[in-house]
Amino acid sequence: MAEDFEQMWRDLAPVGRSSASGGYFRQPFTAAETELRGWFAEQCAARDLALEADGNGNLVATWAPPAGDAAGPAVLVGSHLDSVLDGGAYDGPLGVVSSLAAVDLLRERGVVPRRPVLVGAFVEEEGSRFGVACLGSRLLTGATSPEAAAALRDRDGVPFLDAMAAAGHEPAPGPAAWLDRVGCFLELHVEQGRDLVHRDLPVGLAGEIWPHGRWRFDFTGEANHAGATRMEDRRDPMLTYAMTVLAANKQARLAGQRATFGRVDVAPNGTNAVPSRVTAWLDARGDSDEALAALVGEVERQGSQRADRDGTGLAVTAESVSGAVRFDTGLTARVGAALADRFGEVPVLPSLAGHDAGVLAASGIPTAMLFVRNPTGVSHSPAEHAETADCLLGVHALADALEALVA
Amino acid sequence: MAEDFEQMWRDLAPVGRSSASGGYFRQPFTAAETELRGWFAEQCAARDLALEADGNGNLVATWAPPAGDAAGPAVLVGSHLDSVLDGGAYDGPLGVVSSLAAVDLLRERGVVPRRPVLVGAFVEEEGSRFGVACLGSRLLTGATSPEAAAALRDRDGVPFLDAMAAAGHEPAPGPAAWLDRVGCFLELHVEQGRDLVHRDLPVGLAGEIWPHGRWRFDFTGEANHAGATRMEDRRDPMLTYAMTVLAANKQARLAGQRATFGRVDVAPNGTNAVPSRVTAWLDARGDSDEALAALVGEVERQGSQRADRDGTGLAVTAESVSGAVRFDTGLTARVGAALADRFGEVPVLPSLAGHDAGVLAASGIPTAMLFVRNPTGVSHSPAEHAETADCLLGVHALADALEALVA
Repeated sequence: MAEDFEQMWRDLAPVGRSSASGGYFRQPFTAAETELRGWFAEQCAARDLALEADGNGNLVATWAPPAGDAAGPAVLVGSHLDSVLDGGAYDGPLGVVSSLAAVDLLRERGVVPRRPVLVGAFVEEEGSRFGVACLGSRLLTGATSPEAAAALRDRDGVPFLDAMAAAGHEPAPGPAAWLDRVGCFLELHVEQGRDLVHRDLPVGLAGEIWPHGRWRFDFTGEANHAGATRMEDRRDPMLTYAMTVLAANKQARLAGQRATFGRVDVAPNGTNAVPSRVTAWLDARGDSDEALAALVGEVERQGSQRADRDGTGLAVTAESVSGAVRFDTGLTARVGAALADRFGEVPVLPSLAGHDAGVLAASGIPTAMLFVRNPTGVSHSPAEHAETADCLLGVHALADALEALVA
Repeated sequence: MAEDFEQMWRDLAPVGRSSASGGYFRQPFTAAETELRGWFAEQCAARDLALEADGNGNLVATWAPPAGDAAGPAVLVGSHLDSVLDGGAYDGPLGVVSSLAAVDLLRERGVVPRRPVLVGAFVEEEGSRFGVACLGSRLLTGATSPEAAAALRDRDGVPFLDAMAAAGHEPAPGPAAWLDRVGCFLELHVEQGRDLVHRDLPVGLAGEIWPHGRWRFDFTGEANHAGATRMEDRRDPMLTYAMTVLAANKQARLAGQRATFGRVDVAPNGTNAVPSRVTAWLDARGDSDEALAALVGEVERQGSQRADRDGTGLAVTAESVSGAVRFDTGLTARVGAALADRFGEVPVLPSLAGHDAGVLAASGIPTAMLFVRNPTGVSHSPAEHAETADCLLGVHALADALEALVA
């Protein structure tokens, strides 16, 4: 299994990797991501797992119980293959590769599943191309409507459905039949923090996901000459934006929450012109739905106040908001018990990042998450890393949990 | 002449115009700007003016005195055809069109030039594609070296010389022979302010150009997950940038100068990642070389201080700096005298914007500038405007000045 895992990891290493930064660009339906899909299909075929694609762009492969066995509801394992722009190798693919390796390990152990095992790869988990995080699982569970998906465009104006079709998938967004077969979901993911480092443990469990979302801030002003226009005569949206960035940071610190402006788009974006428009996206997370709403409300309030002073406009649009998610306590306890022999008592941590697991959990599917130690805590960056030894322990943990659920 | 002027203006109106904003995108060596060059060549041919292109991408046409006349040094008139991104119709083209119309008007008046009249169109005055403002006149006068020009790239990485060659020009950057024939330069330009509105006058003169320049600010940090990374653990260059934007604005207000961040480029520019890098360009102007240096130094100091606090880096690079320029007082007085009959006493105003006239003046060529009233003062914007009646008075003023110099 270890050799198989490492070979799969080597297969993936060059796909979508920037030679400049060493980071990954694996946006949905691009050449790189299409290569990953092809790789996943090959891996499933090599393992005799029947692969299907749904009309959302998600892929799912089935390891069926022997014919004639009473097959209960399936156990879904998996994660996603896409990355943020200039992201790391582990966020997403580690869960997919570990799921395939866990199937290998169970077979090595001679386990015969009494329930189907599904291995899934969700599309556009990062929202890096079409702006909505967990788009594949959101469409599958109905959290995002097909109409909303049809309206999505990437930065070049390409519609989501056209991009899917161009990559060879037949678009039919919305809940798909395969979800009805899913009894529970286990997602393994690299930790995005250093809790496990502090606890000196290779694996952990996630108990909840903080509420989080993305809000588009449109700051509007008036283009004018950067030299000839008196400072007092300007309506410069860059000033309003700058103050809003600092306000978001300060409010998040004060409230113990998270707020980030990581993406900005300026028009006309010329050196010698006061901008006419600054569009920026706020990523915010709070430890409760109320705290998140209060944080975003306060950032908007301070931005609007500054807009009045700058003679600019500010409009805020929620692009995707995910409420608090608590993973299934029963399932989490069963997984924890399955891990006890190998790892002792495994801690249950909060996740500050969103995951497809959160979307499936919110839709009512009992869900649990496993974390693998991240020595630096860095993610969404070329520097994201996990040690191979920890990854292999992660596969064992996932296999232990899976065995307890399907054997 | 009026009819010719209006026809020329109608010819140019659709070229490079965005149907979305109504603004102009006339970057050097693009399809739109190539069309403008073709138009200029046709106009010169129709007027029997011999056209030449230099190895910098500048165009110049000659109205020669009758053969046998002792030809003194030439009088150059003209401006530029390129625009900022999403710019106005007047900044640049008004000077070129008015120069052609002034030749028409002198011919109508039966004026026979005793010195050559050159009509010039300089390339990349706005620096909107290759980053260096007045690139054509800078290369022509040696203010920018051919080596520096060879190193210039546009936002897509296309080298300046390749872009020029692709548009059908033979690149040979550096001082060109035609400059040796120039005895003085007159540039007509739409005013970028409302001084003439307040004075209720259609035309004015420029006496000086404020020192100005462009500085690239490279803010570096560490990419990381926007949710999972604690606020205290970040090295977020967007924060340093935001504070620097506000510091630049405040310093410029306090000092009575100008400072603008109108262009910014973020990496990886993803919603759910703390950026690894923010690159932004400061456009700054001061009423003296010392004031400008002090302004930029103070902005850099405050930015660096904040960078220390944010755990980020800041490197500042001057991309182009133009010192104070005072136009030729003798020539300006002669032009003022030529205008007195028609306009009475014409005011001499400062220009807060840079111009090719400033570059030629700095190189030692006696230079004067004419302004045409701008009712809103807005420029570098789709809203930039001048009334046709004022533009026609501008042509008369330019013709009056030209007649005094060449008849």
